Amino acid sequence: MEPPKRRRSNTRARLLEGALEVFAERGFHGASVEDICERAGFTRGAFYSNFGSKDELVLTLFQATTDRLLEQIEALLPELANQPGSLLDAVLGLLDETAPDQRQWHLISAEFTLHALRDPDAAKALNEQRAMFRESLTRLVEQIAETGGLELTVPAEQFVRMVMALHEGARSQSLLEPREVPAGSLEHTFLPMVLEAVSRPSR
Amino acid sequence: MEPPKRRRSNTRARLLEGALEVFAERGFHGASVEDICERAGFTRGAFYSNFGSKDELVLTLFQATTDRLLEQIEALLPELANQPGSLLDAVLGLLDETAPDQRQWHLISAEFTLHALRDPDAAKALNEQRAMFRESLTRLVEQIAETGGLELTVPAEQFVRMVMALHEGARSQSLLEPREVPAGSLEHTFLPMVLEAVSRPSR
Repeated sequence: MEPPKRRRSNTRARLLEGALEVFAERGFHGASVEDICERAGFTRGAFYSNFGSKDELVLTLFQATTDRLLEQIEALLPELANQPGSLLDAVLGLLDETAPDQRQWHLISAEFTLHALRDPDAAKALNEQRAMFRESLTRLVEQIAETGGLELTVPAEQFVRMVMALHEGARSQSLLEPREVPAGSLEHTFLPMVLEAVSRPSR
Repeated sequence: MEPPKRRRSNTRARLLEGALEVFAERGFHGASVEDICERAGFTRGAFYSNFGSKDELVLTLFQATTDRLLEQIEALLPELANQPGSLLDAVLGLLDETAPDQRQWHLISAEFTLHALRDPDAAKALNEQRAMFRESLTRLVEQIAETGGLELTVPAEQFVRMVMALHEGARSQSLLEPREVPAGSLEHTFLPMVLEAVSRPSR
């Protein structure tokens, strides 16, 4: 028999996977805890011994995705530290690959953001989660700039916010018009220009 | 008594206004045609003699807002044609002002986009509406560049897509964190850099 700890972690993983599917089909509000349990093959009891609420499950999904992305970016650093341009390309490639299904990911992420705009508790939790991710990315950008002998003419956090904003809006266009806007195309065209515009050799 | 045509146009305007409020409160899916009629003080009959469906009403809202924005931009052209940088600022200012309530506007626009990602008919209608708006903006950008003696190093439509994507993602951050990201701040910081990077004096 599996040890209890691993069993619990498998249950969580299967609930998260099931939830992502059910959310994509029915929307965050349209998918109940029962729907998620049914898809994953567990009871409500199993759900609530792993997550306090549907909100908490979504935030756990976000956390898992951003943690994976940060790990992958960090793994690229040694190889690419001296080529900020290539690093940007590599990071953009990761953004595309990390969320296993961009459509599912965009749907739940956009829906939870809308939910947060109407629910102050969800907004607080989402903002905290996004702040942690943004701070990690900001430190990475600062580290890359320093290693590359560059300084930024805007705060690194502003640059990260801009990348996140452009990526979110571009993904929405790509999903609506996949042929006209291939995933990542706006980011690959414009972000290197912005990076070039905000960086100069440090003294 | 008002002539029938004006009465009809007042009914439409009040239905549109009521719908925007009800959507902001309950969401696109949560707000029924009955809710909208009740808010605007009309019967279902009045609704359906003006709009074929809730989708059609939302697309009419989008059309009215983008028409107004395009008119306002065109009105600025003679004054600012020779200062592409100031024009960009002016246009960004308009984007903020045109939607009378950015929060309401963002909610319905983001929700209808999500709806379109699950409903091919809605996607087709939304894409057509967005294409018309984008083409008008693209022609304006080309006209401004020509008057200013500039040529763009990317297709004007790509630039417009990038502006729309950044604005959408930035507005989402501004609504979630109004103090950290004042409305328009990311656009005002980064769009002039991008415009500079993609334009050069024409021969």
